[in-house]
Amino acid sequence: MNKTKATAGNNGEKDRSDCFVILELTTSGGIVIDLKSKVEALFGDAIRTLCMDVLKHFGIEHAHLIVEDKGALPFVMAARLEAAIHQVIKSEKEYLPEMLPENLYSSKRNQHRISRLYLPGNTPSLMINAGIHSSNAIILDLEDAVAFDKKHEARYLVRNTLRHLSFMGAERMVRINQVPRGLDDLDYIIPHNVNTVVVPKCESPEQIHEVNKRIATLQKNVNVPKTVWLIPILESALGIIKSYEIAPAADTVVALAIGLEDYTADIGVSRTNEGTESLFARCQVINACKAAGIQALDSVFSDVGDNDALKTYVIQSKSIGFDGIGCIHPRQLKTIHEYFAPDELDIERAKKILIAFADATEQGHGVVSLGTKMIDAPVVKRAQRTIDLAISLGRLQHDWRSIDNKMNSAS
Amino acid sequence: MNKTKATAGNNGEKDRSDCFVILELTTSGGIVIDLKSKVEALFGDAIRTLCMDVLKHFGIEHAHLIVEDKGALPFVMAARLEAAIHQVIKSEKEYLPEMLPENLYSSKRNQHRISRLYLPGNTPSLMINAGIHSSNAIILDLEDAVAFDKKHEARYLVRNTLRHLSFMGAERMVRINQVPRGLDDLDYIIPHNVNTVVVPKCESPEQIHEVNKRIATLQKNVNVPKTVWLIPILESALGIIKSYEIAPAADTVVALAIGLEDYTADIGVSRTNEGTESLFARCQVINACKAAGIQALDSVFSDVGDNDALKTYVIQSKSIGFDGIGCIHPRQLKTIHEYFAPDELDIERAKKILIAFADATEQGHGVVSLGTKMIDAPVVKRAQRTIDLAISLGRLQHDWRSIDNKMNSAS
Amino acid sequence: MNKTKATAGNNGEKDRSDCFVILELTTSGGIVIDLKSKVEALFGDAIRTLCMDVLKHFGIEHAHLIVEDKGALPFVMAARLEAAIHQVIKSEKEYLPEMLPENLYSSKRNQHRISRLYLPGNTPSLMINAGIHSSNAIILDLEDAVAFDKKHEARYLVRNTLRHLSFMGAERMVRINQVPRGLDDLDYIIPHNVNTVVVPKCESPEQIHEVNKRIATLQKNVNVPKTVWLIPILESALGIIKSYEIAPAADTVVALAIGLEDYTADIGVSRTNEGTESLFARCQVINACKAAGIQALDSVFSDVGDNDALKTYVIQSKSIGFDGIGCIHPRQLKTIHEYFAPDELDIERAKKILIAFADATEQGHGVVSLGTKMIDAPVVKRAQRTIDLAISLGRLQHDWRSIDNKMNSAS
Repeated sequence: MNKTKATAGNNGEKDRSDCFVILELTTSGGIVIDLKSKVEALFGDAIRTLCMDVLKHFGIEHAHLIVEDKGALPFVMAARLEAAIHQVIKSEKEYLPEMLPENLYSSKRNQHRISRLYLPGNTPSLMINAGIHSSNAIILDLEDAVAFDKKHEARYLVRNTLRHLSFMGAERMVRINQVPRGLDDLDYIIPHNVNTVVVPKCESPEQIHEVNKRIATLQKNVNVPKTVWLIPILESALGIIKSYEIAPAADTVVALAIGLEDYTADIGVSRTNEGTESLFARCQVINACKAAGIQALDSVFSDVGDNDALKTYVIQSKSIGFDGIGCIHPRQLKTIHEYFAPDELDIERAKKILIAFADATEQGHGVVSLGTKMIDAPVVKRAQRTIDLAISLGRLQHDWRSIDNKMNSAS
Repeated sequence: MNKTKATAGNNGEKDRSDCFVILELTTSGGIVIDLKSKVEALFGDAIRTLCMDVLKHFGIEHAHLIVEDKGALPFVMAARLEAAIHQVIKSEKEYLPEMLPENLYSSKRNQHRISRLYLPGNTPSLMINAGIHSSNAIILDLEDAVAFDKKHEARYLVRNTLRHLSFMGAERMVRINQVPRGLDDLDYIIPHNVNTVVVPKCESPEQIHEVNKRIATLQKNVNVPKTVWLIPILESALGIIKSYEIAPAADTVVALAIGLEDYTADIGVSRTNEGTESLFARCQVINACKAAGIQALDSVFSDVGDNDALKTYVIQSKSIGFDGIGCIHPRQLKTIHEYFAPDELDIERAKKILIAFADATEQGHGVVSLGTKMIDAPVVKRAQRTIDLAISLGRLQHDWRSIDNKMNSAS
Repeated sequence: MNKTKATAGNNGEKDRSDCFVILELTTSGGIVIDLKSKVEALFGDAIRTLCMDVLKHFGIEHAHLIVEDKGALPFVMAARLEAAIHQVIKSEKEYLPEMLPENLYSSKRNQHRISRLYLPGNTPSLMINAGIHSSNAIILDLEDAVAFDKKHEARYLVRNTLRHLSFMGAERMVRINQVPRGLDDLDYIIPHNVNTVVVPKCESPEQIHEVNKRIATLQKNVNVPKTVWLIPILESALGIIKSYEIAPAADTVVALAIGLEDYTADIGVSRTNEGTESLFARCQVINACKAAGIQALDSVFSDVGDNDALKTYVIQSKSIGFDGIGCIHPRQLKTIHEYFAPDELDIERAKKILIAFADATEQGHGVVSLGTKMIDAPVVKRAQRTIDLAISLGRLQHDWRSIDNKMNSAS
């Protein structure tokens, strides 16, 4: 590694909450830091102390460091500096910010995933407040939202974000790059409690097996490792064809997503709002998922300005069997939640099933029926999910059973 | 078997043509029969004689039998009493009503199946006149139309119905319960000239093999057993995915049916009249069937009150390739027959093919063509089916050839 | 071979550019030619010379030949006479017209195939000027467009047409009969620079292997044989189901076509302009093709009189992913070319990709991106195809780069 000068971060006019660092190794003269920051008066000393600490951590004694600060939080600045350092020295070390205790939760296989918010993995300003939008999941994106010359530094930023930014309960997801390139991304996220890895442009079960193998390697020294869920995205005709093999490829696959921007490009058509060009592919994915007992997740909707079209899209998505859709802007969340929510009919049916099941269990019946339909375990599970979703979206009160009971007694 | 008291039959206010029996074994005192019947004056003696005969057949000498009669025919009452008896004594015996000679016909692989009428397997009043509606097939249903605590007694009623109720030429079908539970249902129907077994919630060729194996066992002492046809119903995403394997699973499979109520529940959507949510699945089933050279049968249409919607449904079903649909009420049959019938264009085309084939055969030609199209065996067969169907539905006269000839000579 | 009299050719009132020959072998008396032709005054001698030459070539010394000429070109007449000769004598010889040097081109795997014009393989009048319509491909059809008793003579006509009629640059295709019957057709076309063989009613990869095997046999004495491309047509439910196996069956398969007339007949439905009955099958074929990296070609549109419906059909074809459609009349070509052409959006996107790629290559970059999207080899290839197509259809000037540059410098 002969390079002695490296940069990291963004310094565009509109970049906020970020910084741009230029690091040049020198052979003498100690550490010289040039800091440009609007908040130098308040935070200048703290920034210098942080930079000195990071450089010292990697054993750098002589260097010229320019920091153009645009309001970067310490975990962001540390990520930028570390990204620059790894370009000029060879080191196995990492400079890790504190893991927030509130980020240590895991996610469930059947977690609601009606909304998942994509955030570019190298844009701190969009990450900072992502948790407040209450999406079911937040995806830090290392793939399409990161330019090629930024792939390296994004890994450090995503790693630090997983540790030190509160996700406020949203499922913690990262979209890695396409396998095999994306396998190295796993090194930066698996040790930091990522809940779910989104695997783009998936075209074979083997890609899933490779991801799981690398995860197992990264977890081999952990006593009781948390399960890391996988969501493959199918984005090509080949991926669609292989959906029946990919959906049941591993126990860790909790959903398949379809990526319609890339899929329509692959088959050489324009994506339309009506979606005739992709209905076949979407239905194939839905059937593959439901047959494998996992969730089916629809594509993002690209036109963030057209909320009416988004509404139509959400209603169609739900009506053909999807369990959620991706979103690329927080302003899409309200519409997604509103129109993906179970409707009254769904809720009433689910209530009846749960009540019948509870009654039967109470009376010690082995087999439960509603009308002439057997209520088996999957039916009960699905009803419970509908109720949970309705409650989580404010469509039903948590104590609906007692409320229903009261109304029944009153009448 | 310690139970000494058992019931069978229905005694709801609206239940007609049925009876409710309460049988209690006693240790002394002989047979005591309490009969409640509006027709006691006329049939009281006959009923008592029947009951005594049944009890005697099973060697019961002391019992208290209450019979609440709502106009049950003897084969119904015998079924009810036998169902009660098998709950309190262990016996391999059966009390079989006479097999009507007119019920001994078999059905053909390519039988028309544009309509198949579902009848609840435990509701005698709906069975009694089922034959007069001229549906292509009658399905005695042991599955969803029978409540769980009635599954046992329904088997005796269906068995007796197969023997003693005239099906008036309709294909004699029974829907068993899902395999493996449904395998035991076969014991009650295979020996009684069921033409076709409907296998619900089918998800693998293995289920078909199991059914066929049990049928073979039940027929092993029959010299020249009649072929029992199978119609698997696909009612889940997994079933749909497996349609390409299930359709050619056995030579006895004459059709696949799709069950849209359960399928839409399985993929978590509402069934709509437009049917966008199931078009993919329906087309997959159609292609699986046609590729295997068997019939494709569409789902029942649930809203028996909406005949306009039924008409639209039938037209769509036919237009995408289905060969028939199920119905749950006789009043749906007229619409089904009317809109599933071959239209004039179909009939004219079929006539031309049959005439060209007859001419060519007469002249000793090996290869037959119509225009530049080769008329091969499957084409002729299909044309013959169209003509047969048109005749059976009153769209064409049986002697159309001679009529056409006359008109041609006259002009 | 005891037959001593044979005929070939068409002598219907409307047949032009053709002739009808009646050849009868005699045992003495030499060659007697009866010629009926409107152009006898001008061409009588030439026709007689040709006939004598052909008869001599096959060693026939005594025969009575009647030629009813309707303006047949020499290569047509020779084909007719040869077809008659092969019915009455046994010979391995062929009478080949000159191979036009301008017909010796080959076609590329990724050749544009937005239009392919079907020509009946036994109708010279439709062939003569076929090249002037500028369809991407011309298909000489030995299958459905040829009556059964004309299959034999059509082979000689198609062979001679391949050699002696200018295709004006259109891809030179022949549709053979269904395998295995069609294998023998290959003997008549492979040695005569057919670019692409269209394989109808394909239902298995094995049929493709058989075609390739016969082609290899026919080419075994050629030093550097040209690759003969294959286009299987899927025309049955079974074919559709097997599309995922047929598309990648061999490296020589450059496209799959779907045949909707036969497909709809196979599944027992009417073909409609809306096409709901075949959307599933068409999408399955598109996905099979795109997954295998080959072209997807849509069916012909039968109503040559309804150009508005054709337009709608072309727009839909393109919008769901087809790369071209078949046509059965030259008058359909204008609409096909107009509405299959890349639109401005396609062209602009393709331009950007090519420019970004050229810039990156110039600057020695390994990885090229447009925005955050990686531009990999397939993306560049697809963009180049769009640009080529736009140029070939007159939507873009050949020197668009320099024009764009000038406009950019000017602004």
